[in-house]
Amino acid sequence: MAAYPDPGAARRLFLQDLAVGDRFVSGTHALDAAQIKAFAFQFDPQPFHTDEEAAHGSFFGGLAASGWHTAALTMKLLVESGIPLANGIIGSGGELQWPQPTRPGDVLRVESEVTGIVPSRSKPGRAMVSMHCRTLNQRGEVLQDFRPKLVVHARPA
Amino acid sequence: MAAYPDPGAARRLFLQDLAVGDRFVSGTHALDAAQIKAFAFQFDPQPFHTDEEAAHGSFFGGLAASGWHTAALTMKLLVESGIPLANGIIGSGGELQWPQPTRPGDVLRVESEVTGIVPSRSKPGRAMVSMHCRTLNQRGEVLQDFRPKLVVHARPA
Repeated sequence: MAAYPDPGAARRLFLQDLAVGDRFVSGTHALDAAQIKAFAFQFDPQPFHTDEEAAHGSFFGGLAASGWHTAALTMKLLVESGIPLANGIIGSGGELQWPQPTRPGDVLRVESEVTGIVPSRSKPGRAMVSMHCRTLNQRGEVLQDFRPKLVVHARPA
Repeated sequence: MAAYPDPGAARRLFLQDLAVGDRFVSGTHALDAAQIKAFAFQFDPQPFHTDEEAAHGSFFGGLAASGWHTAALTMKLLVESGIPLANGIIGSGGELQWPQPTRPGDVLRVESEVTGIVPSRSKPGRAMVSMHCRTLNQRGEVLQDFRPKLVVHARPA
């Protein structure tokens, strides 16, 4: 098992460098109400994401980030500092859960683990790598749980 | 089965108004390269999402939208015109797939279907409603396949 708590890491890992159990920890992103509202106005314009007062009386009991904002920030952290894959982070999807809302003041980080590696039968030099990526706030509460499958290339000969 | 191809629909449906098999069709969103790059610079800054030339030699063979951009635009369409739920679209997550990349010039729409309704045992007047939401382009190609569970409230007495 290897740990790569290196926020400035360039993309550099190939398939040969990965093993089940490898773990990665991203840098952090501090979220505030202004960011939450700006994203929501553009992509998820519902009152509990755009207006503190309306949010207070809603299901969420206060301003909450769109789940898709949490997801987009998770991707930002993964790309910038989360999983240093040489060919980039290329996912086909996966099971996505938001166990609790992301709130203004939350400081997000992403902890990722390799959970499976399945070499492609049709494309030599490629594999589908299963990951478990958890997005946490500064109190260690899980804001998002995502289990993507990534396309990872082998190091060129 | 009811169909609601009404892009201007206000949110108005409660739990009592939904049945398995109900279908909804959203309005459309036209995507271009500038939008793709702007989202990517903010949330998914990888060359195949930010630069045509770099994208040409990449896995994608040309500029492709971040999957999270497709997801965010899907949510925009659902909120604005896709599923007119009285209490808003509140999801806890679900299985998310991107069968093919979203490209500049794609015109997105979302077709949704109610696939299950499970009343809450602990919270009377609420149910978890399973949906199948497919994001299509103008050629009917599936860009995203999402199976969310939504919290839906009953009409107040």
